[in-house]
Amino acid sequence: VPRSLTLTEVAELAGGRVEGDPERRVDAVRALASAGPGDLAFVTAERFRGAAEASVAGALLVPPSLADVDRDRVVCADPGLGIVAVLERLYPEPRPAAGVHSTAVVAATATVHPEASVGPLAVVGERTVLEARVAVHAGAVLGDDCRVGEGSTLHPRVVLYPRTVLGRDVIVHAGAVVGSDGFGYATGPSGPVKVPQVGCVIVEDRVEIGANTAIDRATLEATRIGADSKLDNLVQVGHNVELGPACIVCGQAGVAGSTRLGRGVVLGGQAGVADHLEIGDRVQIAAASAALQSLGADQVVAGIPAVEIRQWRRQTSGIARLGQMLRRLRALEKTLEAEEERHGDDP
Amino acid sequence: VPRSLTLTEVAELAGGRVEGDPERRVDAVRALASAGPGDLAFVTAERFRGAAEASVAGALLVPPSLADVDRDRVVCADPGLGIVAVLERLYPEPRPAAGVHSTAVVAATATVHPEASVGPLAVVGERTVLEARVAVHAGAVLGDDCRVGEGSTLHPRVVLYPRTVLGRDVIVHAGAVVGSDGFGYATGPSGPVKVPQVGCVIVEDRVEIGANTAIDRATLEATRIGADSKLDNLVQVGHNVELGPACIVCGQAGVAGSTRLGRGVVLGGQAGVADHLEIGDRVQIAAASAALQSLGADQVVAGIPAVEIRQWRRQTSGIARLGQMLRRLRALEKTLEAEEERHGDDP
Amino acid sequence: VPRSLTLTEVAELAGGRVEGDPERRVDAVRALASAGPGDLAFVTAERFRGAAEASVAGALLVPPSLADVDRDRVVCADPGLGIVAVLERLYPEPRPAAGVHSTAVVAATATVHPEASVGPLAVVGERTVLEARVAVHAGAVLGDDCRVGEGSTLHPRVVLYPRTVLGRDVIVHAGAVVGSDGFGYATGPSGPVKVPQVGCVIVEDRVEIGANTAIDRATLEATRIGADSKLDNLVQVGHNVELGPACIVCGQAGVAGSTRLGRGVVLGGQAGVADHLEIGDRVQIAAASAALQSLGADQVVAGIPAVEIRQWRRQTSGIARLGQMLRRLRALEKTLEAEEERHGDDP
Repeated sequence: VPRSLTLTEVAELAGGRVEGDPERRVDAVRALASAGPGDLAFVTAERFRGAAEASVAGALLVPPSLADVDRDRVVCADPGLGIVAVLERLYPEPRPAAGVHSTAVVAATATVHPEASVGPLAVVGERTVLEARVAVHAGAVLGDDCRVGEGSTLHPRVVLYPRTVLGRDVIVHAGAVVGSDGFGYATGPSGPVKVPQVGCVIVEDRVEIGANTAIDRATLEATRIGADSKLDNLVQVGHNVELGPACIVCGQAGVAGSTRLGRGVVLGGQAGVADHLEIGDRVQIAAASAALQSLGADQVVAGIPAVEIRQWRRQTSGIARLGQMLRRLRALEKTLEAEEERHGDDP
Repeated sequence: VPRSLTLTEVAELAGGRVEGDPERRVDAVRALASAGPGDLAFVTAERFRGAAEASVAGALLVPPSLADVDRDRVVCADPGLGIVAVLERLYPEPRPAAGVHSTAVVAATATVHPEASVGPLAVVGERTVLEARVAVHAGAVLGDDCRVGEGSTLHPRVVLYPRTVLGRDVIVHAGAVVGSDGFGYATGPSGPVKVPQVGCVIVEDRVEIGANTAIDRATLEATRIGADSKLDNLVQVGHNVELGPACIVCGQAGVAGSTRLGRGVVLGGQAGVADHLEIGDRVQIAAASAALQSLGADQVVAGIPAVEIRQWRRQTSGIARLGQMLRRLRALEKTLEAEEERHGDDP
Repeated sequence: VPRSLTLTEVAELAGGRVEGDPERRVDAVRALASAGPGDLAFVTAERFRGAAEASVAGALLVPPSLADVDRDRVVCADPGLGIVAVLERLYPEPRPAAGVHSTAVVAATATVHPEASVGPLAVVGERTVLEARVAVHAGAVLGDDCRVGEGSTLHPRVVLYPRTVLGRDVIVHAGAVVGSDGFGYATGPSGPVKVPQVGCVIVEDRVEIGANTAIDRATLEATRIGADSKLDNLVQVGHNVELGPACIVCGQAGVAGSTRLGRGVVLGGQAGVADHLEIGDRVQIAAASAALQSLGADQVVAGIPAVEIRQWRRQTSGIARLGQMLRRLRALEKTLEAEEERHGDDP
């Protein structure tokens, strides 16, 4: 099905206005460097003006600061946001057909909505409920007593342990594991003793969970991923953790057991948060940093252990000058020694 | 099957004594904050006295230091350990029925004990042996020539590469991969050349391996995970590594190739250990730290590179004072310059 | 099939010469410490001379510096490279039989070469092409419109998202996910808004991808893994990343979105590279380090943030001396105060 859009249609989708030929058609969105005459490219900031002017893209989606660029164009407040609806129209995600594939293994007591889809070789456990428009892709394994809300997508080979609850429009990427046993051991007379993890994981609406990410279920209650939170690939979430809504957790970051993150917290790639902490709303923890203490709202921190980011920058530049400091210290010592000797000569 | 326990039964399971009504029944274990009148909550330390007193839990499992709390209660030496048997009784893990699911693919030369269970869409390779009470869950793939000891559990989508050996009562969580090729390359004239990895992985009794963890097989001999060791999610274990018994490896930690860890070593979350090192018994490496040198027994280290933890604390506080040190250094330099000038005036 | 080799054959395979009995037979390659009279062991460097002499291996593969060791031996320029062909001969990797297993689910529009193999319970999507000698192992899931080049191997439970392209002789280990959605969100009025990721992943010839590694597809164009690059386990590659040829990425390392690595770049274990950077040819980033800025060719860096490695060593030793520096600073201050007081007494 070939699709294309006029710039008038692009402007409607992106929430902008056309400058130039409103009837020009684009049939693909490409990067500035690779776009050709039939393509739309988008530019997010003034600093890409040179690249935009050098591009041979047929049309551009630009911010107001680039409204004057000499090309058929659509001007909108935020091209990074405006492009979303354009991409959705030009590249519709194929939804699998409703129904259960003949090779899937669905328990007799499971409830699969007639508009839900269960792909080949997927497994759905006892009493598990799939609501309307749920898509369970090939090879996913859902344990007993799970619930998956309307419109949610489980990519190939996702595993939900028993009792996992997903809200609406949740996306779980391939290989992610939700609800695995928390890492809890008591100290027995002859080594570590496993503490049964009898809680669950609750994933709220519109959460996205990356490939091969692991989220442990709670010891007693619920590990909770708040609505609109987005977790990247290979993220680790320990048992009893609560992520406030709209958190962003970048690749390979980890949150240790029983820690609570507020609303809109951002963890950079490979960042870590220690266990049993409280991280306030909108805190940002830089990539490759580790928060080892609780943090009040709105702090921006970096380093291991993480400190306020300006302090971290000062520390970093201080460390870079350590050699120089040591030399200056030695110079002072010598000067003083020389003085002492001179004074020693004094009568 | 509804279950409940009297406090007398709780005391027997936990190894403690009842204070208050021995006939009081509890049917669930909940966290202090969410427990209601029908629930048991447990308290591990004196510092939770306030929370314990504020809780409306019907009964408490407490340590001797809280023996006086005003509630029907069971007092035991270590509630964190005592609760284990209570949880096991109230929340028995359902074991899958023995037998091979009709959709599993089991090689003709494999040996599956009649009391073992192979779930839907699992694959068991040639000559692989599953001993009594082994549970292979849905979608797990066991290569050729593996052996899985009595009572071990492989959660959904675990992969064992050929020749992997698991001991008794091993638990492998969903998505974990055991026995993948070690990361070994020689330098050829036109780029890296793969060195065949012809060894295996041996996992000893009672080991637990977390979700999406990866353990590479040895180049020639065996990568070995010692008995009672517990590995959390997303852990990386390189080829030829040997983990002594009873090691604790927290989430996203990694051990590079050919390194040996002694007995009871603890790696915090995201900790790393470089290759070809010897890490002594009971060494503890803090979260977000990296051991780049071998370590003698009983050391507790932190930082990148990891140093003795008190030294790391001093370094950390020293780094925090770098700005101040620099100011003091400048002040000294000025003072001395001023003196020099004054002395310069001297006859 | 028992196999053994004479030392003459070993010398031919390894590209070396026999010293001692050319008819001596070896039937296994073992580590120095465990090899017995029927085994070959290999020694890569002069510093293992003691271990080589102590070994009871029947024969040794040694470098020229150990040509004089008293044992039947093969001397070759690089035993670490020479052993490769010997291992390949003694331990041939069994290739699965060609053909599609009866339990695999292959789309009617897929093209499977008659010499390709699709294992049990694997899934191959619409219009996907498997070339000659491709091996898709049990439980792997290939989406629609993928292409897998000649001789490539997909281990159990690999997932390729739609439109993924693999070159020739690529190896993808169990649980790896290639082509998952890039982590891209615009800021909407009520929280993060998912940006459709309509690009793909292109993996070039002879790449090896480790267990449970995740590679995201590009937003618009292609995430690209250059020929001969080797990625270890649990590696994260963000969207739009380009890895030059022959890169080595060790376990748990990560490359954030839109960063480009040149030819032959090496990332140590748990290393990270921030987004939108240019990393020059042959750059080496040490384990547990994080590159937060672009780097010119041939740099060797370490630390967080990563700096030139000699500078990092100086910083590290400087940090270790911070306590001592502080004490020296105090001593100077006291000396000066004492002087000031004395001068204060001066007329």
